[in-house]
Amino acid sequence: MYVIGELINGMFSNVKKAIQEKDGQIIQELAKAQEQAGAWALDVNVGPASRDAVGAMLWLVENIRKVSDIPVAIDNAKWDIMQEVIPQVPGEKIINSSKADEDLLDKYVPLAAVNNASLIGLTLDQAGVPNDVDKRVELAAAILTKCAEHGLDVGKLFIDPIILPINVAPQQADNVLCSLEQMKMLHDPAPHFLLGLSNLSQNCANRSLINRVYLAMARGSGLDAAIMDPLDSELMDVAITTDLLCGATIYCDSFLEAARSK
Amino acid sequence: MYVIGELINGMFSNVKKAIQEKDGQIIQELAKAQEQAGAWALDVNVGPASRDAVGAMLWLVENIRKVSDIPVAIDNAKWDIMQEVIPQVPGEKIINSSKADEDLLDKYVPLAAVNNASLIGLTLDQAGVPNDVDKRVELAAAILTKCAEHGLDVGKLFIDPIILPINVAPQQADNVLCSLEQMKMLHDPAPHFLLGLSNLSQNCANRSLINRVYLAMARGSGLDAAIMDPLDSELMDVAITTDLLCGATIYCDSFLEAARSK
Repeated sequence: MYVIGELINGMFSNVKKAIQEKDGQIIQELAKAQEQAGAWALDVNVGPASRDAVGAMLWLVENIRKVSDIPVAIDNAKWDIMQEVIPQVPGEKIINSSKADEDLLDKYVPLAAVNNASLIGLTLDQAGVPNDVDKRVELAAAILTKCAEHGLDVGKLFIDPIILPINVAPQQADNVLCSLEQMKMLHDPAPHFLLGLSNLSQNCANRSLINRVYLAMARGSGLDAAIMDPLDSELMDVAITTDLLCGATIYCDSFLEAARSK
Repeated sequence: MYVIGELINGMFSNVKKAIQEKDGQIIQELAKAQEQAGAWALDVNVGPASRDAVGAMLWLVENIRKVSDIPVAIDNAKWDIMQEVIPQVPGEKIINSSKADEDLLDKYVPLAAVNNASLIGLTLDQAGVPNDVDKRVELAAAILTKCAEHGLDVGKLFIDPIILPINVAPQQADNVLCSLEQMKMLHDPAPHFLLGLSNLSQNCANRSLINRVYLAMARGSGLDAAIMDPLDSELMDVAITTDLLCGATIYCDSFLEAARSK
Protein backbone atom coordinates (compact mmCIF):
# COMPACT_ATOMS: atom_id res chain seq x y z
CA MET A 1 0.00 0.00 0.00
CA TYR A 2 1.49 3.27 -1.18
CA VAL A 3 0.72 5.53 1.79
CA ILE A 4 0.78 9.28 1.14
CA GLY A 5 0.87 11.17 4.44
CA GLU A 6 -1.80 13.84 4.67
CA LEU A 7 -0.65 15.87 7.67
CA ILE A 8 1.22 18.74 5.96
CA ASN A 9 -1.90 20.69 5.11
CA GLY A 10 -2.65 24.33 5.89
CA MET A 11 -6.15 23.21 6.82
CA PHE A 12 -4.63 21.97 10.08
CA SER A 13 -3.98 24.74 12.61
CA ASN A 14 -0.40 23.69 13.42
CA VAL A 15 0.61 23.81 9.75
CA LYS A 16 -1.28 27.05 9.15
CA LYS A 17 0.58 28.62 12.06
CA ALA A 18 3.90 27.24 10.82
CA ILE A 19 3.33 28.80 7.38
CA GLN A 20 2.32 32.15 8.83
CA GLU A 21 5.23 32.28 11.28
CA LYS A 22 7.75 30.61 8.93
CA ASP A 23 8.41 27.98 11.57
CA GLY A 24 10.16 25.30 9.51
CA GLN A 25 10.76 23.05 12.52
CA ILE A 26 7.09 22.05 12.71
CA ILE A 27 7.05 21.06 9.04
CA GLN A 28 10.29 19.12 9.32
CA GLU A 29 8.98 17.21 12.31
CA LEU A 30 5.75 16.36 10.54
CA ALA A 31 7.72 15.12 7.54
CA LYS A 32 10.03 12.98 9.65
CA ALA A 33 7.23 11.56 11.79
CA GLN A 34 5.15 10.52 8.78
CA GLU A 35 8.09 8.94 6.99
CA GLN A 36 9.11 7.05 10.13
CA ALA A 37 5.54 5.81 10.56
CA GLY A 38 5.73 4.25 7.11
CA ALA A 39 4.58 6.91 4.62
CA TRP A 40 5.93 6.40 1.11
CA ALA A 41 5.20 10.00 0.07
CA LEU A 42 4.02 13.25 1.64
CA ASP A 43 1.08 15.34 0.53
CA VAL A 44 1.72 19.10 0.69
CA ASN A 45 -1.16 21.53 0.76
CA VAL A 46 -0.89 25.20 1.74
CA GLY A 47 -4.57 25.37 2.66
CA PRO A 48 -6.95 28.24 2.17
CA ALA A 49 -5.19 30.86 4.29
CA SER A 50 -2.07 31.72 2.35
CA ARG A 51 -1.99 34.76 0.04
CA ASP A 52 1.21 33.65 -1.67
CA ALA A 53 0.35 30.04 -2.45
CA VAL A 54 3.38 29.45 -4.68
CA GLY A 55 5.79 30.86 -2.12
CA ALA A 56 4.18 28.94 0.74
CA MET A 57 4.21 25.67 -1.21
CA LEU A 58 7.88 26.04 -2.12
CA TRP A 59 8.71 26.92 1.49
CA LEU A 60 6.94 23.77 2.69
CA VAL A 61 8.78 21.63 0.12
CA GLU A 62 12.10 23.24 1.05
CA ASN A 63 11.62 22.31 4.68
CA ILE A 64 10.51 18.77 3.86
CA ARG A 65 13.58 18.29 1.67
CA LYS A 66 15.82 19.23 4.60
CA VAL A 67 14.81 15.98 6.30
CA SER A 68 13.25 13.67 3.72
CA ASP A 69 13.85 12.41 0.18
CA ILE A 70 10.51 10.67 -0.37
CA PRO A 71 8.14 11.97 -3.07
CA VAL A 72 6.06 15.05 -2.34
CA ALA A 73 2.52 15.31 -3.67
CA ILE A 74 1.88 18.93 -4.61
CA ASP A 75 -1.75 19.36 -3.64
CA ASN A 76 -3.46 22.33 -5.26
CA ALA A 77 -6.50 22.73 -7.50
CA LYS A 78 -5.19 25.73 -9.49
CA TRP A 79 -3.37 25.21 -12.78
CA ASP A 80 -1.34 28.45 -12.53
CA ILE A 81 0.07 27.45 -9.17
CA MET A 82 0.82 23.86 -10.22
CA GLN A 83 2.51 25.01 -13.42
CA GLU A 84 4.77 27.36 -11.50
CA VAL A 85 5.60 25.05 -8.57
CA ILE A 86 6.23 21.68 -10.22
CA PRO A 87 9.41 22.56 -12.16
CA GLN A 88 10.91 23.99 -8.95
CA VAL A 89 10.33 20.91 -6.75
CA PRO A 90 13.54 18.96 -6.12
CA GLY A 91 13.39 15.17 -6.08
CA GLU A 92 10.43 12.95 -6.81
CA LYS A 93 7.07 14.64 -7.07
CA ILE A 94 3.41 13.92 -7.67
CA ILE A 95 0.93 16.34 -9.20
CA ASN A 96 -2.20 16.31 -7.02
CA SER A 97 -4.33 16.59 -9.09
CA SER A 98 -6.04 16.95 -12.45
CA LYS A 99 -9.71 16.52 -13.17
CA ALA A 100 -10.64 14.35 -16.13
CA ASP A 101 -11.81 17.13 -18.48
CA GLU A 102 -10.01 16.82 -21.81
CA ASP A 103 -8.71 20.40 -21.86
CA LEU A 104 -7.28 20.06 -18.35
CA LEU A 105 -5.62 16.70 -19.07
CA ASP A 106 -4.05 18.28 -22.16
CA LYS A 107 -2.23 20.61 -19.78
CA TYR A 108 -1.60 18.46 -16.68
CA VAL A 109 -0.41 15.27 -18.37
CA PRO A 110 2.33 17.06 -20.37
CA LEU A 111 3.33 18.97 -17.21
CA ALA A 112 3.86 15.61 -15.49
CA ALA A 113 5.65 14.03 -18.45
CA VAL A 114 8.04 16.95 -19.01
CA ASN A 115 8.94 17.18 -15.31
CA ASN A 116 9.17 13.43 -14.70
CA ALA A 117 6.38 13.76 -12.15
CA SER A 118 3.63 11.34 -11.26
CA LEU A 119 0.04 12.50 -11.71
CA ILE A 120 -3.14 11.94 -9.71
CA GLY A 121 -6.11 11.94 -12.08
CA LEU A 122 -9.55 12.35 -10.52
CA THR A 123 -12.56 10.64 -12.09
CA LEU A 124 -14.37 13.94 -11.91
CA ASP A 125 -15.24 16.42 -14.65
CA GLN A 126 -17.09 19.71 -14.95
CA ALA A 127 -20.32 17.84 -14.21
CA GLY A 128 -18.95 17.01 -10.76
CA VAL A 129 -18.38 13.70 -8.96
CA PRO A 130 -20.11 10.84 -10.81
CA ASN A 131 -23.00 9.21 -8.96
CA ASP A 132 -22.47 5.87 -10.61
CA VAL A 133 -19.86 3.27 -11.51
CA ASP A 134 -19.97 3.61 -15.29
CA LYS A 135 -19.10 7.31 -15.39
CA ARG A 136 -16.13 6.75 -13.06
CA VAL A 137 -14.81 4.01 -15.33
CA GLU A 138 -15.40 6.13 -18.43
CA LEU A 139 -13.42 9.03 -16.95
CA ALA A 140 -10.62 6.66 -15.86
CA ALA A 141 -10.40 5.47 -19.46
CA ALA A 142 -10.24 9.09 -20.65
CA ILE A 143 -7.34 9.76 -18.26
CA LEU A 144 -5.48 6.65 -19.45
CA THR A 145 -6.00 7.68 -23.07
CA LYS A 146 -4.52 11.11 -22.45
CA CYS A 147 -1.50 9.57 -20.70
CA ALA A 148 -0.87 7.38 -23.74
CA GLU A 149 -1.30 10.37 -26.04
CA HIS A 150 1.14 12.56 -24.14
CA GLY A 151 3.65 9.83 -23.26
CA LEU A 152 3.17 9.61 -19.50
CA ASP A 153 4.09 6.12 -18.30
CA VAL A 154 1.11 4.34 -16.74
CA GLY A 155 3.28 3.52 -13.71
CA LYS A 156 3.33 7.26 -12.98
CA LEU A 157 -0.44 7.57 -12.97
CA PHE A 158 -2.65 7.38 -9.88
CA ILE A 159 -6.36 7.25 -10.68
CA ASP A 160 -8.60 8.49 -7.85
CA PRO A 161 -12.24 7.36 -8.16
CA ILE A 162 -13.26 9.87 -5.46
CA ILE A 163 -14.76 8.72 -2.21
CA LEU A 164 -17.49 10.79 -0.56
CA PRO A 165 -18.62 10.86 3.09
CA ILE A 166 -20.62 7.73 3.93
CA ASN A 167 -23.13 9.76 5.94
CA VAL A 168 -24.13 11.96 3.00
CA ALA A 169 -23.56 9.68 -0.02
CA PRO A 170 -24.28 6.16 1.26
CA GLN A 171 -24.09 4.30 -2.06
CA GLN A 172 -20.86 5.92 -3.28
CA ALA A 173 -18.57 3.76 -1.12
CA ASP A 174 -19.85 0.63 -2.83
CA ASN A 175 -19.78 2.35 -6.22
CA VAL A 176 -16.10 3.13 -5.71
CA LEU A 177 -15.37 -0.54 -4.89
CA CYS A 178 -17.16 -1.65 -8.07
CA SER A 179 -15.35 1.05 -10.05
CA LEU A 180 -11.96 -0.15 -8.79
CA GLU A 181 -12.69 -3.71 -9.93
CA GLN A 182 -13.60 -2.51 -13.40
CA MET A 183 -10.92 0.17 -13.75
CA LYS A 184 -8.10 -2.24 -13.03
CA MET A 185 -9.09 -4.17 -16.15
CA LEU A 186 -8.74 -1.10 -18.40
CA HIS A 187 -4.98 -1.39 -18.83
CA ASP A 188 -2.29 -4.00 -18.27
CA PRO A 189 -0.14 -3.15 -16.39
CA ALA A 190 -2.69 -1.22 -14.36
CA PRO A 191 -2.02 2.30 -13.10
CA HIS A 192 -2.09 2.92 -9.35
CA PHE A 193 -5.48 3.44 -7.75
CA LEU A 194 -5.69 5.93 -4.93
CA LEU A 195 -8.24 7.39 -2.54
CA GLY A 196 -8.29 10.37 -0.22
CA LEU A 197 -9.42 8.02 2.51
CA SER A 198 -10.29 10.47 5.29
CA ASN A 199 -13.03 12.05 3.20
CA LEU A 200 -15.09 8.86 3.63
CA SER A 201 -15.67 9.47 7.31
CA GLN A 202 -16.03 13.28 7.53
CA ASN A 203 -18.25 14.13 10.50
CA CYS A 204 -18.91 10.44 11.26
CA ALA A 205 -18.75 8.55 14.54
CA ASN A 206 -16.14 5.75 14.61
CA ARG A 207 -14.02 7.55 12.01
CA SER A 208 -10.90 5.48 12.44
CA LEU A 209 -12.86 2.19 12.28
CA ILE A 210 -14.65 3.28 9.10
CA ASN A 211 -11.34 4.31 7.53
CA ARG A 212 -9.64 1.06 8.55
CA VAL A 213 -12.37 -1.20 7.24
CA TYR A 214 -12.75 0.65 3.96
CA LEU A 215 -8.99 0.74 3.35
CA ALA A 216 -8.96 -3.07 3.54
CA MET A 217 -12.14 -3.49 1.47
CA ALA A 218 -10.81 -1.18 -1.23
CA ARG A 219 -7.48 -3.04 -1.26
CA GLY A 220 -9.51 -6.18 -1.87
CA SER A 221 -11.09 -4.42 -4.84
CA GLY A 222 -7.84 -3.15 -6.33
CA LEU A 223 -6.77 -0.04 -4.43
CA ASP A 224 -3.01 0.19 -3.90
CA ALA A 225 -2.52 3.75 -2.65
CA ALA A 226 -4.14 6.12 -0.16
CA ILE A 227 -3.76 9.65 1.09
CA MET A 228 -4.23 9.08 4.81
CA ASP A 229 -2.90 9.68 8.30
CA PRO A 230 0.18 7.48 8.81
CA LEU A 231 0.27 8.45 12.49
CA ASP A 232 -3.01 6.59 13.04
CA SER A 233 -1.15 3.46 14.06
CA GLU A 234 -4.20 1.18 13.88
CA LEU A 235 -4.80 2.38 10.33
CA MET A 236 -1.15 1.76 9.44
CA ASP A 237 -1.44 -1.73 10.95
CA VAL A 238 -4.25 -2.37 8.48
CA ALA A 239 -2.26 -1.00 5.54
CA ILE A 240 0.69 -3.22 6.47
CA THR A 241 -1.54 -6.26 6.95
CA THR A 242 -3.17 -5.76 3.54
CA ASP A 243 0.34 -5.97 2.06
CA LEU A 244 0.81 -9.32 3.82
CA LEU A 245 -2.56 -10.69 2.72
CA CYS A 246 -2.10 -9.59 -0.89
CA GLY A 247 1.15 -11.52 -1.04
CA ALA A 248 3.21 -8.32 -1.34
CA THR A 249 5.14 -9.21 1.82
CA ILE A 250 5.88 -12.49 3.58
CA TYR A 251 4.63 -13.44 7.04
CA CYS A 252 6.86 -13.39 10.07
CA ASP A 253 5.66 -13.04 13.66
CA SER A 254 6.95 -9.45 13.73
CA PHE A 255 5.53 -8.46 10.35
CA LEU A 256 4.15 -5.16 11.69
CA GLU A 257 7.46 -4.03 13.15
CA ALA A 258 9.37 -5.32 10.12
CA ALA A 259 7.27 -3.20 7.76
CA ARG A 260 7.73 -0.08 9.86
CA SER A 261 11.49 -0.46 10.16
CA LYS A 262 12.03 -0.51 6.38
CA MET B 1 -22.20 -10.25 6.23
CA TYR B 2 -23.79 -13.57 7.02
CA VAL B 3 -21.90 -14.51 10.20
CA ILE B 4 -21.90 -18.19 11.17
CA GLY B 5 -20.77 -18.55 14.79
CA GLU B 6 -17.98 -21.12 15.17
CA LEU B 7 -17.95 -21.67 18.92
CA ILE B 8 -20.06 -24.84 19.24
CA ASN B 9 -17.27 -27.20 18.26
CA GLY B 10 -16.05 -30.27 20.15
CA MET B 11 -12.53 -29.14 19.32
CA PHE B 12 -12.96 -26.58 22.12
CA SER B 13 -12.56 -28.05 25.60
CA ASN B 14 -15.72 -26.50 27.07
CA VAL B 15 -17.87 -28.00 24.31
CA LYS B 16 -16.08 -31.35 24.48
CA LYS B 17 -16.75 -31.48 28.20
CA ALA B 18 -20.39 -30.49 27.71
CA ILE B 19 -20.89 -33.31 25.20
CA GLN B 20 -19.23 -35.86 27.45
CA GLU B 21 -21.15 -34.77 30.55
CA LYS B 22 -24.41 -34.02 28.72
CA ASP B 23 -24.35 -30.49 30.13
CA GLY B 24 -26.85 -28.75 27.86
CA GLN B 25 -26.58 -25.45 29.74
CA ILE B 26 -23.13 -24.73 28.29
CA ILE B 27 -24.37 -25.29 24.74
CA GLN B 28 -27.46 -23.18 25.27
CA GLU B 29 -25.37 -20.34 26.63
CA LEU B 30 -22.96 -20.51 23.69
CA ALA B 31 -25.89 -20.43 21.29
CA LYS B 32 -27.52 -17.46 23.00
CA ALA B 33 -24.27 -15.53 23.32
CA GLN B 34 -23.39 -15.93 19.65
CA GLU B 35 -26.87 -14.99 18.45
CA GLN B 36 -26.92 -11.94 20.72
CA ALA B 37 -23.50 -10.89 19.40
CA GLY B 38 -24.92 -10.82 15.88
CA ALA B 39 -24.48 -14.34 14.45
CA TRP B 40 -26.97 -15.18 11.69
CA ALA B 41 -26.38 -18.93 12.01
CA LEU B 42 -24.52 -21.36 14.27
CA ASP B 43 -21.98 -23.93 13.19
CA VAL B 44 -22.28 -27.25 15.06
CA ASN B 45 -19.35 -29.66 15.13
CA VAL B 46 -19.02 -32.59 17.53
CA GLY B 47 -15.27 -32.66 17.17
CA PRO B 48 -13.00 -35.66 17.09
CA ALA B 49 -13.77 -37.05 20.56
CA SER B 50 -17.28 -38.43 20.29
CA ARG B 51 -17.92 -42.12 19.54
CA ASP B 52 -21.59 -41.55 18.71
CA ALA B 53 -21.28 -38.61 16.32
CA VAL B 54 -24.92 -38.72 15.19
CA GLY B 55 -26.24 -38.81 18.75
CA ALA B 56 -23.88 -36.05 19.88
CA MET B 57 -24.80 -33.85 16.91
CA LEU B 58 -28.53 -34.26 17.50
CA TRP B 59 -28.05 -33.55 21.19
CA LEU B 60 -26.17 -30.32 20.37
CA VAL B 61 -28.93 -29.27 17.92
CA GLU B 62 -31.64 -30.13 20.46
CA ASN B 63 -30.02 -27.85 23.04
CA ILE B 64 -29.50 -25.04 20.54
CA ARG B 65 -33.17 -25.24 19.51
CA LYS B 66 -34.24 -24.74 23.13
CA VAL B 67 -32.91 -21.17 22.94
CA SER B 68 -32.46 -20.22 19.28
CA ASP B 69 -34.31 -20.46 15.96
CA ILE B 70 -31.48 -19.34 13.67
CA PRO B 71 -30.05 -21.78 11.11
CA VAL B 72 -27.63 -24.45 12.28
CA ALA B 73 -24.72 -25.49 10.08
CA ILE B 74 -24.19 -29.23 10.52
CA ASP B 75 -20.41 -29.49 10.31
CA ASN B 76 -19.14 -32.99 9.56
CA ALA B 77 -17.01 -34.49 6.81
CA LYS B 78 -18.69 -37.92 6.73
CA TRP B 79 -21.56 -38.63 4.34
CA ASP B 80 -23.15 -41.32 6.51
CA ILE B 81 -23.43 -38.97 9.46
CA MET B 82 -24.73 -36.07 7.37
CA GLN B 83 -27.28 -38.26 5.66
CA GLU B 84 -28.65 -39.46 8.99
CA VAL B 85 -28.59 -36.13 10.84
CA ILE B 86 -29.96 -33.65 8.28
CA PRO B 87 -33.54 -35.02 8.04
CA GLN B 88 -33.79 -34.90 11.85
CA VAL B 89 -32.70 -31.27 12.30
CA PRO B 90 -35.66 -29.00 13.12
CA GLY B 91 -35.77 -25.52 11.58
CA GLU B 92 -33.39 -24.00 9.08
CA LYS B 93 -30.18 -25.90 8.43
CA ILE B 94 -27.00 -25.77 6.40
CA ILE B 95 -24.99 -28.78 5.25
CA ASN B 96 -21.34 -28.09 6.08
CA SER B 97 -19.98 -29.33 3.70
CA SER B 98 -19.49 -31.13 0.41
CA LYS B 99 -16.30 -31.30 -1.61
CA ALA B 100 -16.57 -30.61 -5.31
CA ASP B 101 -16.07 -34.16 -6.60
CA GLU B 102 -18.90 -35.08 -8.94
CA ASP B 103 -19.89 -38.27 -7.12
CA LEU B 104 -20.09 -36.44 -3.79
CA LEU B 105 -22.11 -33.55 -5.21
CA ASP B 106 -24.53 -36.09 -6.68
CA LYS B 107 -25.28 -37.15 -3.09
CA TYR B 108 -24.97 -33.90 -1.11
CA VAL B 109 -26.89 -31.58 -3.45
CA PRO B 110 -30.00 -33.82 -3.51
CA LEU B 111 -29.76 -34.21 0.28
CA ALA B 112 -29.90 -30.41 0.56
CA ALA B 113 -32.68 -30.03 -2.01
CA VAL B 114 -34.92 -32.73 -0.50
CA ASN B 115 -34.52 -31.41 3.04
CA ASN B 116 -34.80 -27.70 2.12
CA ALA B 117 -31.30 -27.19 3.51
CA SER B 118 -28.57 -24.82 2.38
CA LEU B 119 -25.25 -26.32 1.27
CA ILE B 120 -21.65 -25.26 1.70
CA GLY B 121 -19.63 -26.42 -1.32
CA LEU B 122 -15.86 -26.43 -0.97
CA THR B 123 -13.68 -25.72 -4.00
CA LEU B 124 -11.70 -28.80 -3.12
CA ASP B 125 -11.63 -32.24 -4.74
CA GLN B 126 -9.76 -35.49 -4.29
CA ALA B 127 -6.60 -33.73 -5.48
CA GLY B 128 -6.79 -31.46 -2.41
CA VAL B 129 -6.94 -27.67 -2.02
CA PRO B 130 -6.12 -25.94 -5.31
CA ASN B 131 -2.93 -23.93 -5.36
CA ASP B 132 -4.22 -21.51 -7.94
CA VAL B 133 -7.15 -19.30 -8.91
CA ASP B 134 -8.29 -21.16 -12.03
CA LYS B 135 -8.88 -24.49 -10.34
CA ARG B 136 -10.92 -22.84 -7.57
CA VAL B 137 -13.12 -21.15 -10.19
CA GLU B 138 -13.45 -24.38 -12.18
CA LEU B 139 -14.61 -26.26 -9.08
CA ALA B 140 -17.05 -23.48 -8.18
CA ALA B 141 -18.54 -23.82 -11.65
CA ALA B 142 -18.84 -27.58 -11.15
CA ILE B 143 -20.72 -27.02 -7.88
CA LEU B 144 -23.09 -24.52 -9.53
CA THR B 145 -23.74 -26.95 -12.37
CA LYS B 146 -24.67 -29.74 -9.97
CA CYS B 147 -27.03 -27.40 -8.09
CA ALA B 148 -28.80 -26.58 -11.35
CA GLU B 149 -28.96 -30.26 -12.27
CA HIS B 150 -30.46 -31.32 -8.93
CA GLY B 151 -32.71 -28.28 -8.45
CA LEU B 152 -31.01 -26.59 -5.49
CA ASP B 153 -31.75 -22.86 -5.56
CA VAL B 154 -28.54 -20.84 -5.94
CA GLY B 155 -29.62 -18.71 -2.98
CA LYS B 156 -29.16 -21.82 -0.82
CA LEU B 157 -25.59 -22.37 -1.95
CA PHE B 158 -22.49 -21.12 -0.13
CA ILE B 159 -19.28 -21.60 -2.08
CA ASP B 160 -16.15 -21.75 0.08
CA PRO B 161 -12.90 -21.12 -1.86
CA ILE B 162 -10.85 -22.40 1.11
CA ILE B 163 -8.44 -20.15 2.92
CA LEU B 164 -5.17 -21.56 4.26
CA PRO B 165 -2.89 -20.24 7.00
CA ILE B 166 -0.95 -17.19 5.80
CA ASN B 167 2.23 -18.41 7.49
CA VAL B 168 2.35 -21.68 5.54
CA ALA B 169 0.63 -20.77 2.24
CA PRO B 170 1.50 -17.11 1.68
CA GLN B 171 0.06 -16.72 -1.84
CA GLN B 172 -3.25 -18.46 -1.16
CA ALA B 173 -4.85 -15.48 0.58
CA ASP B 174 -4.43 -13.39 -2.56
CA ASN B 175 -5.52 -16.32 -4.74
CA VAL B 176 -8.75 -16.56 -2.76
CA LEU B 177 -9.41 -12.83 -3.29
CA CYS B 178 -8.88 -13.22 -7.06
CA SER B 179 -11.05 -16.35 -7.04
CA LEU B 180 -13.89 -14.50 -5.33
CA GLU B 181 -13.85 -11.78 -7.97
CA GLN B 182 -14.07 -14.33 -10.75
CA MET B 183 -16.50 -16.72 -9.08
CA LYS B 184 -19.08 -14.04 -8.50
CA MET B 185 -19.34 -13.60 -12.26
CA LEU B 186 -20.22 -17.28 -12.84
CA HIS B 187 -23.91 -16.91 -12.07
CA ASP B 188 -26.45 -14.11 -11.75
CA PRO B 189 -27.76 -13.99 -9.08
CA ALA B 190 -24.55 -15.09 -7.41
CA PRO B 191 -24.50 -17.76 -4.70
CA HIS B 192 -23.16 -16.82 -1.29
CA PHE B 193 -19.40 -16.89 -0.84
CA LEU B 194 -18.09 -18.04 2.50
CA LEU B 195 -14.79 -18.59 4.28
CA GLY B 196 -13.75 -20.38 7.44
CA LEU B 197 -11.94 -17.21 8.45
CA SER B 198 -10.02 -18.41 11.51
CA ASN B 199 -8.03 -20.89 9.44
CA LEU B 200 -6.18 -17.95 7.84
CA SER B 201 -4.36 -17.06 11.04
CA GLN B 202 -3.67 -20.48 12.63
CA ASN B 203 -0.53 -20.22 14.76
CA CYS B 204 0.08 -16.62 13.71
CA ALA B 205 0.86 -13.56 15.80
CA ASN B 206 -1.74 -10.79 15.60
CA ARG B 207 -4.48 -13.32 14.81
CA SER B 208 -7.41 -11.02 15.40
CA LEU B 209 -5.86 -8.24 13.29
CA ILE B 210 -5.17 -10.63 10.42
CA ASN B 211 -8.73 -11.97 10.58
CA ARG B 212 -10.22 -8.47 10.72
CA VAL B 213 -8.25 -7.12 7.80
CA TYR B 214 -8.86 -10.15 5.60
CA LEU B 215 -12.58 -10.21 6.36
CA ALA B 216 -12.81 -6.67 5.01
CA MET B 217 -10.56 -7.34 2.01
CA ALA B 218 -12.54 -10.45 1.09
CA ARG B 219 -15.80 -8.51 1.43
CA GLY B 220 -14.34 -6.03 -1.03
CA SER B 221 -13.72 -8.95 -3.40
CA GLY B 222 -17.19 -10.48 -3.07
CA LEU B 223 -17.34 -12.46 0.17
CA ASP B 224 -20.67 -12.19 1.97
CA ALA B 225 -20.46 -14.91 4.63
CA ALA B 226 -17.94 -16.18 7.15
CA ILE B 227 -17.62 -18.87 9.78
CA MET B 228 -16.00 -16.89 12.56
CA ASP B 229 -16.04 -15.95 16.22
CA PRO B 230 -18.91 -13.49 16.79
CA LEU B 231 -17.72 -12.90 20.35
CA ASP B 232 -14.57 -11.22 18.98
CA SER B 233 -16.19 -7.81 19.22
CA GLU B 234 -13.55 -6.05 17.12
CA LEU B 235 -14.09 -8.61 14.37
CA MET B 236 -17.85 -8.13 14.58
CA ASP B 237 -17.33 -4.35 14.38
CA VAL B 238 -15.55 -4.97 11.08
CA ALA B 239 -18.30 -7.26 9.78
CA ILE B 240 -20.93 -4.64 10.66
CA THR B 241 -18.89 -1.84 9.12
CA THR B 242 -18.47 -3.77 5.85
CA ASP B 243 -22.28 -3.94 5.68
CA LEU B 244 -22.36 -0.14 5.99
CA LEU B 245 -19.66 0.43 3.39
CA CYS B 246 -21.22 -2.01 0.89
CA GLY B 247 -24.46 -0.05 1.07
CA ALA B 248 -26.28 -2.94 2.79
CA THR B 249 -27.09 -0.72 5.77
CA ILE B 250 -27.45 3.04 6.20
CA TYR B 251 -25.19 5.19 8.34
CA CYS B 252 -26.28 6.53 11.69
CA ASP B 253 -23.95 7.57 14.50
CA SER B 254 -24.87 4.41 16.43
CA PHE B 255 -24.57 2.05 13.46
CA LEU B 256 -22.60 -0.53 15.48
CA GLU B 257 -25.15 -0.72 18.27
CA ALA B 258 -28.04 -0.63 15.80
CA ALA B 259 -26.71 -3.67 13.94
CA ARG B 260 -26.23 -5.64 17.15
CA SER B 261 -29.70 -4.88 18.51
CA LYS B 262 -31.45 -6.31 15.45
